[in-house]
Amino acid sequence: MTNRLEQQIAFLNEADKLKTIVRATELCDNSRYENSAEHSWHLTLYALVLADQAGPNVDINRVIKMLILHDLVEIDAGDNPIFGEVDVAKMEAQEQIAADRIFGLLPDDLRESLRAIWEEFEAAETASAQFAKSLDRFQPPMQNLQAGGGSWTDYNVTEKQIETRIGGKIALGAPALWDYARTRIAAFFAAKPKA
Amino acid sequence: MTNRLEQQIAFLNEADKLKTIVRATELCDNSRYENSAEHSWHLTLYALVLADQAGPNVDINRVIKMLILHDLVEIDAGDNPIFGEVDVAKMEAQEQIAADRIFGLLPDDLRESLRAIWEEFEAAETASAQFAKSLDRFQPPMQNLQAGGGSWTDYNVTEKQIETRIGGKIALGAPALWDYARTRIAAFFAAKPKA
Repeated sequence: MTNRLEQQIAFLNEADKLKTIVRATELCDNSRYENSAEHSWHLTLYALVLADQAGPNVDINRVIKMLILHDLVEIDAGDNPIFGEVDVAKMEAQEQIAADRIFGLLPDDLRESLRAIWEEFEAAETASAQFAKSLDRFQPPMQNLQAGGGSWTDYNVTEKQIETRIGGKIALGAPALWDYARTRIAAFFAAKPKA
Repeated sequence: MTNRLEQQIAFLNEADKLKTIVRATELCDNSRYENSAEHSWHLTLYALVLADQAGPNVDINRVIKMLILHDLVEIDAGDNPIFGEVDVAKMEAQEQIAADRIFGLLPDDLRESLRAIWEEFEAAETASAQFAKSLDRFQPPMQNLQAGGGSWTDYNVTEKQIETRIGGKIALGAPALWDYARTRIAAFFAAKPKA
């Protein structure tokens, strides 16, 4: 038992590093960039509050577990900003190696069950995973709208790019959230002074 | 529906402020103090990983929801370090006022259901709430042991004070976690140079 508990605590101590992984998204008050740990917390709150946006086959408790775990691999693989240039195949390979190491710190049963939750999120094939992915894509524009542009300004992003990169993914799991975001994003860009 | 969604988003935007509430506990790497949002995320991960420490009447999904919500009132009421001096009655009154305002941003049904989860945590009477409280007390010593003392050093805390302030609360919901912590805390203080 003690050895099991030591493995569990070693994993939880390692997970602490997610608090040092900085994302491209700023806080709503524009004061600094968000880290992946506090982002993950915020998303679990999104799931609790926006559960009424989930389709009938979504298991909201499973969604919350996915969101708790979804960014852990960034401890090794780093965060890839959604509007940055990224080699997807390379990123996915790095994340698999990260998952091997990080979930590998756990006792066998937990390593398998928690990794399965993460893999389900990554595959985005179940209704629960698609809803979780929608929330993960929906939160950054909500922050950017509050922060007066945020990462859209940093990356010089156009309205069309937002639609292409995140619109479809939000709409797949949570169509009404994309309707909500699209209207507000359009108003933001309409009001923005032209460069 | 749009008005409902606007209320939900207003609450989620307000919740972003929890990322700016600084706690007395340091990160494991000693680099800075932890904020209450990333702390809340870490605790949900503790619940996932240490679910085998929960008693038979604990609903682990309910525990996770409590941990997501448990510190939201700190947006208005601030964090009260566990080894600081605090007027408990005054703190609880401030937290009730904070809960009125913050949960009050939500549509009625969500305001009631999420506040009930938070009140259950605060009352610490159910098995789920007692387990959630145990994790909330168990994480800081785990961080302090990694950080070479952390808030124990800042607050000049003795081994006896740790036992008094957190030992009973950890043991109530998760006795094996207190056994684990106590042994390691004793070893830490035995190895520490006397002031």
